Amino acid sequence: MTAQPLSPPLSPHELYGRHRATLDQAVAASRARGYWSPFAEMPSPRAYGETAAADGETAFKARLNKLFPLDQPAGQGFVGAERSPFGLKLGVTYPKPDLDALLAAAKAAMPGWRKAGPDGRAGVCLEILTRLNKRSFEIANAVQHTTGQAFMMAFQAGGPHAQDRGLEAVAYGWKAMTDQVPSARWEKPQGKNPPLVMDKRFEVVPRGVAVVIGCATFPTWNGYPGLFASLVTGNAVVVKPHPAAILPLAITVEVCREVLAAAGLDPNLVTLAADSADAPITKELATRPEVALIDFTGSSEFGSWLEQNARQAQVFTEKAGVNTVIIDSTDDPKGMARNLAFALSLYSGQMCTTPQAIFVPKDGIRAGGEHLGFDQVVQAIATATDKFLSDPERAVEVLGAIQSDATLKRLEDAQALGTVALASRAIAHPKFPDARVHTPLILVLDAKDEDKYGQELFGPIAMIVKVEGTDDALTRAARLVREKGALTAALYSTDQDVIDRVQDTLTEAGVALSVNLTGGVLVNQSAAFSDFHGTGANPACNAALCDLAFVAGRFRVVQTRVPVAA
Amino acid sequence: MTAQPLSPPLSPHELYGRHRATLDQAVAASRARGYWSPFAEMPSPRAYGETAAADGETAFKARLNKLFPLDQPAGQGFVGAERSPFGLKLGVTYPKPDLDALLAAAKAAMPGWRKAGPDGRAGVCLEILTRLNKRSFEIANAVQHTTGQAFMMAFQAGGPHAQDRGLEAVAYGWKAMTDQVPSARWEKPQGKNPPLVMDKRFEVVPRGVAVVIGCATFPTWNGYPGLFASLVTGNAVVVKPHPAAILPLAITVEVCREVLAAAGLDPNLVTLAADSADAPITKELATRPEVALIDFTGSSEFGSWLEQNARQAQVFTEKAGVNTVIIDSTDDPKGMARNLAFALSLYSGQMCTTPQAIFVPKDGIRAGGEHLGFDQVVQAIATATDKFLSDPERAVEVLGAIQSDATLKRLEDAQALGTVALASRAIAHPKFPDARVHTPLILVLDAKDEDKYGQELFGPIAMIVKVEGTDDALTRAARLVREKGALTAALYSTDQDVIDRVQDTLTEAGVALSVNLTGGVLVNQSAAFSDFHGTGANPACNAALCDLAFVAGRFRVVQTRVPVAA
Repeated sequence: MTAQPLSPPLSPHELYGRHRATLDQAVAASRARGYWSPFAEMPSPRAYGETAAADGETAFKARLNKLFPLDQPAGQGFVGAERSPFGLKLGVTYPKPDLDALLAAAKAAMPGWRKAGPDGRAGVCLEILTRLNKRSFEIANAVQHTTGQAFMMAFQAGGPHAQDRGLEAVAYGWKAMTDQVPSARWEKPQGKNPPLVMDKRFEVVPRGVAVVIGCATFPTWNGYPGLFASLVTGNAVVVKPHPAAILPLAITVEVCREVLAAAGLDPNLVTLAADSADAPITKELATRPEVALIDFTGSSEFGSWLEQNARQAQVFTEKAGVNTVIIDSTDDPKGMARNLAFALSLYSGQMCTTPQAIFVPKDGIRAGGEHLGFDQVVQAIATATDKFLSDPERAVEVLGAIQSDATLKRLEDAQALGTVALASRAIAHPKFPDARVHTPLILVLDAKDEDKYGQELFGPIAMIVKVEGTDDALTRAARLVREKGALTAALYSTDQDVIDRVQDTLTEAGVALSVNLTGGVLVNQSAAFSDFHGTGANPACNAALCDLAFVAGRFRVVQTRVPVAA
Repeated sequence: MTAQPLSPPLSPHELYGRHRATLDQAVAASRARGYWSPFAEMPSPRAYGETAAADGETAFKARLNKLFPLDQPAGQGFVGAERSPFGLKLGVTYPKPDLDALLAAAKAAMPGWRKAGPDGRAGVCLEILTRLNKRSFEIANAVQHTTGQAFMMAFQAGGPHAQDRGLEAVAYGWKAMTDQVPSARWEKPQGKNPPLVMDKRFEVVPRGVAVVIGCATFPTWNGYPGLFASLVTGNAVVVKPHPAAILPLAITVEVCREVLAAAGLDPNLVTLAADSADAPITKELATRPEVALIDFTGSSEFGSWLEQNARQAQVFTEKAGVNTVIIDSTDDPKGMARNLAFALSLYSGQMCTTPQAIFVPKDGIRAGGEHLGFDQVVQAIATATDKFLSDPERAVEVLGAIQSDATLKRLEDAQALGTVALASRAIAHPKFPDARVHTPLILVLDAKDEDKYGQELFGPIAMIVKVEGTDDALTRAARLVREKGALTAALYSTDQDVIDRVQDTLTEAGVALSVNLTGGVLVNQSAAFSDFHGTGANPACNAALCDLAFVAGRFRVVQTRVPVAA
């Protein structure tokens, strides 16, 4: 991909002018919380151009088996051992970072960025997002062949939906930075004497160097909020991708640097710090005194390590949890089973939002006009899942591939945890013979087996838990939220009193609740500008994407005041 | 003071209606940053009523030598050993808290408070502030006779100005909580198919129990922001006053509980946890798992301890720093000297905002049409200070009294640190013969003596530092801000280039700057709704009063979504 110089070269202020309408809409949307997105989510020629799909694939393939070029301060040697869960070895290498040089360059770049001001920085960030959008097909290929997402998800979640989340962070950051006027005249009456008059200026200053620690499953979707929240608020950002999913973020960094340079700013405001699984640099990087902000998505263990050890920084984490579903009753058992089947299958359960424990009363439920026994509910979900994935061509486009060896191993080991209601089976991918594709395992467990269903088992592993009844389910679900954390919770009930009680209890416990999903929306899905992803109110994460708390601490306001002669 | 039942009893919603106009004005003022306050700052009969002053003093005196009545969960025994810096022993005792019972009661009170919603909570908080305002004279007496502030300052800073800061926190908290709509309909187009439609609800939930740790010098001014920021955002608040300044906060807690009860809410949302200097409870309280928010004003040592050890909580600290003044040039040397004399004298330098190190070029400065040598600048400041305090009756109303033995000792020891330009002298208080009143000590030091002037010396101790020139002064000031922290910085210069350079450098360093103060505003003073007190961008504090970052993390938003049938 050749660099696309801005022609004519545009200042941050001009970029603000270019993108201001979009920014205003984004700010309005994040307040109104209806549906809104400026980025087309369908990979259609109409939205992206006739040749966009082919161009993107070509651009991706041109990356393979080469050094990824980045003109940033580099150390000695190279890293990079990405391997597609669909079978391909990527062979891309990246310059090893020299952290001293990288952090020094990042710091040196910040004063000029501060002076671009909130508007100028928002303009630059929106130009970056606009260009990232144009690169959505290339990024989709990179996401697919690092995370194992099927193409459609890789395109949507890795492209426009990630860009939405990035834009949302820009909108929140800009809104927070401009929460007070940039300057004001203060005039205090003094009775019969002349008033005291002062001119005051309020300038936004950054906190320091920010580090974004990417994950292996949603490198851009989970990475962009922190990247753009820190960048728009004036900080320099070092992007530290997961060793298994470097490419999508490397392309992102490239685009950021291209726009920064073209706008006359220091491109070292955004740099890449790639590492390898056997020589990780994250702990060293995260605890450097220059680092003031950290965004992390990944394991609870490492997220907690960061919270405990990166004491010099403000740390935003999205970790793991145990997502639960409470089935009390339904008037659409088929819709429920189909919706759950989709939710459990999507990207082979490799989403932090996938349900893990499904609580079903031991005496069954009211379903439509009839009664379904416990076993019938289990059977309905298992059958729906099996049927949903019966066509391999369709199945692989939902399941994608298993991202890591660890998840595959976990899936194998999980069979012993309970009674198998639906066995996991391997599916041959029609296009990628080496792809590791596996359908979800569905187990039945007893309520007392909380040591099993109450631990996060990342991957295509679902457990239906036999409980006394809805109250028992609610007590267990709320406790799991409080103790283990959760990104999502779901409820099926036809009883408004039950819905109100569950909503009240789970709101108090601090988890987002989806009620009676039987149609086109899955509990796993979270829409920018409308859904808060995570709450920050339970152990699964200490932040939400995106809200004021996610941005307000990333900058400070420093004032100057000068008296005005009466 | 007898309880004033709300008549007729008013719900939180009705209180919101009553105070909504004030809230709207407060939100607008905090954005526009001009002068605004709803609370009269002069202790005048016109504003507060003919008998208010006498009633307040009577109410204060009625507190003395008695148990302070609080109907909250209490432990065994009593604490309280307050002693007025003006000589009086207060003799007030307070129930010793039982932390287990107190925290359990605080937690139990929160669900009802959450349900009052942002509007209802803001209404209750504004009613509390309105009633605190009516108690300003009583609180002023309590502030005076715990902190040592002279009456006028005790009234203004302890009363209306503290109420302003509390209101500012309510306004910011309410603004942040209502940053998104409480509910929304989300409607996503699906091409030719019917849209996906969901109803979503966004509820604000608290973080947990908040603790406000008061200081000995400005118990209400520094305590109200945290108290009201945590309370309005749905948390219960335990107020832990400094053992030397319990009464002002005890009265505050009493008013909070009175309003909460009258509004049908659980008064245990605000409780007092008094302790004594020889059996402090702060460390135990601050590290309790129930505690999610801590606001602290006090020493750097204890503030840093909290930041390091109260890991379960979000910790907001205002600690200490070294405030500097750079004198480059002035066209009003008399105004400058008089303004600095006032700044150094006010409350005997016992403000976190008082200048400590005054940098003066060794070759002197341009001053008006003439040149003033270094010694002449020193002399001008010393003489102005001496003259300003020459009338004992006026002097005691500016100086107040020395709050603690430690500050008195510090003042005595400081004489040896440099060449004395103005010796401190004791002044007999015409009304309180046992008051410890001392004028500021002004020393001259060399730039190399940073080990002396570069440590905070709380109290009436100022140091004029001989530097090479303005650049040298700026380098030193900026380094002190970065390494030791600062709440304020000041500059005198007639050269716009110098002003711009100092502003840029100190903004980058993260400290608020006041330029060319020669009139009625002192560098020490910070006006609610206009001045950010502290920046959070240097080691003197990790938060500012008041901004979005001060409130946005005190609550979370939890959503529920339900599909709407097409």
